[in-house]
Amino acid sequence: MPVDITSPSNPLIKRLRSLNDKKTRKVEGLFLAEGLRVCTEALHNGHVPAYLVFGADGEAHPLTTALIAATEAAQGTAVRTDRDILHKLTGKDNPQSVVAAFPIPDTRLAGLDRFAAAMWLVAENLRDPGNLGTMLRTCDATGAGGVILLDQCCDPFSVEAVRASMGALFTRKVVQATGPEFFAWLRDGAGELVGAALEGRTIDYRAHQFTAPSFIMVGNEQAGLPPAYTAECDALLRLPMKGTADSLNVAVAAAVLLYRALGQFEPV
Amino acid sequence: MPVDITSPSNPLIKRLRSLNDKKTRKVEGLFLAEGLRVCTEALHNGHVPAYLVFGADGEAHPLTTALIAATEAAQGTAVRTDRDILHKLTGKDNPQSVVAAFPIPDTRLAGLDRFAAAMWLVAENLRDPGNLGTMLRTCDATGAGGVILLDQCCDPFSVEAVRASMGALFTRKVVQATGPEFFAWLRDGAGELVGAALEGRTIDYRAHQFTAPSFIMVGNEQAGLPPAYTAECDALLRLPMKGTADSLNVAVAAAVLLYRALGQFEPV
Repeated sequence: MPVDITSPSNPLIKRLRSLNDKKTRKVEGLFLAEGLRVCTEALHNGHVPAYLVFGADGEAHPLTTALIAATEAAQGTAVRTDRDILHKLTGKDNPQSVVAAFPIPDTRLAGLDRFAAAMWLVAENLRDPGNLGTMLRTCDATGAGGVILLDQCCDPFSVEAVRASMGALFTRKVVQATGPEFFAWLRDGAGELVGAALEGRTIDYRAHQFTAPSFIMVGNEQAGLPPAYTAECDALLRLPMKGTADSLNVAVAAAVLLYRALGQFEPV
Repeated sequence: MPVDITSPSNPLIKRLRSLNDKKTRKVEGLFLAEGLRVCTEALHNGHVPAYLVFGADGEAHPLTTALIAATEAAQGTAVRTDRDILHKLTGKDNPQSVVAAFPIPDTRLAGLDRFAAAMWLVAENLRDPGNLGTMLRTCDATGAGGVILLDQCCDPFSVEAVRASMGALFTRKVVQATGPEFFAWLRDGAGELVGAALEGRTIDYRAHQFTAPSFIMVGNEQAGLPPAYTAECDALLRLPMKGTADSLNVAVAAAVLLYRALGQFEPV
């Protein structure tokens, strides 16, 4: 049976709010996701809430009912509350009817099955959680397996990244590793490594024949890939850049390459 | 000669700060852009600051010198100040060494030369200034002429949009119109209208042969294009969507289509 909470100073509400903080997420092993659609998507992909907070006014919705049942069946806690507390929990003026805390999934490289998808994104020192969320959505849309985050990337389980991924965080694999760890793992099996780059021994991206599993690597928003990382690549792909202003957004460059590879793996 | 301002309560500083507000921008006909590189890019594209505020510690930089000279030659005002005031002006902890107020360019459809580029983006009810900035960068990179904003889009001259465009706002054309105005203008001359859509009479985007000038239209982040707008299109293009989560980010979809069109107009 759901627990009723009506006080914003309730310790559980405070504890869940503290999951907005990265250190607390790490200690608790939990992260927050919002929204009935996103939480249902999570459930369909095997992610069961440890805590599910729902507005009493939305309790009758069949998707809410299903989430409550799944949470309680897995020994999680379902909490019935009101709009004000949902607002406090999310910091949003129009809070979603459901907020859930999910166990942080295993992000170790060792758990990655490289043959589970024909394409993977690899991002080095990616800083913007919005870019990461956009990249996860593009992986979902193109069937890429997920994103391998190298070195000092943003936290994929921050509220910003989870929001920007719009559910794709739950359908895709996220891995965290250092560059050297990833290169050693990659070369211990099949797979090509192609980097997005503007300089050096690049070829036009349309001239490359992708081979599955293809690992498509992009660099930091400002600096791009470091030379030591482009040196590891089997090919460096260059997108036409006709302009005079700045380079492309990193999530845009990744998407153009993923759709190009998909077009080769699955022709019209 | 530059004016020296050392007080954050100086009326000119207050007035420039107020350009963070949309209504003030409209009344003043000015908008803010930050950064030596971006302001220089602006100058190279014919945008001369009405006001140029620079940190005294960066005055010796040749690009700063050039900006001061151009501003004063055009009867603008150059202001020498300090880091604290630049911080107040931008709200950033690490302010750029230069902030400038530029005249808002003409965004009327009547001023658009459709033959100035082979491709144009058209965005309907685009809400996120980050998406607009990303789209302008992609236009710059692909040589698309710019973005035609239909109906209730975000303000292209907000600080957020200008920042996200990273200078591309100054190299690309921005037009503001209603849907009916745009359709009437379009059909009064040459050009195809292709819409990004997921449903209806869509074809795989790779099956379309683009014809210049091509107007590539994308819809609102949540709702996509309304039926009345897809009905206006010569073709509706569908990107493969293999996933189960959400649709693609709108700036990503626009970029995949722009790069596809560029690939046809300019083969490898």
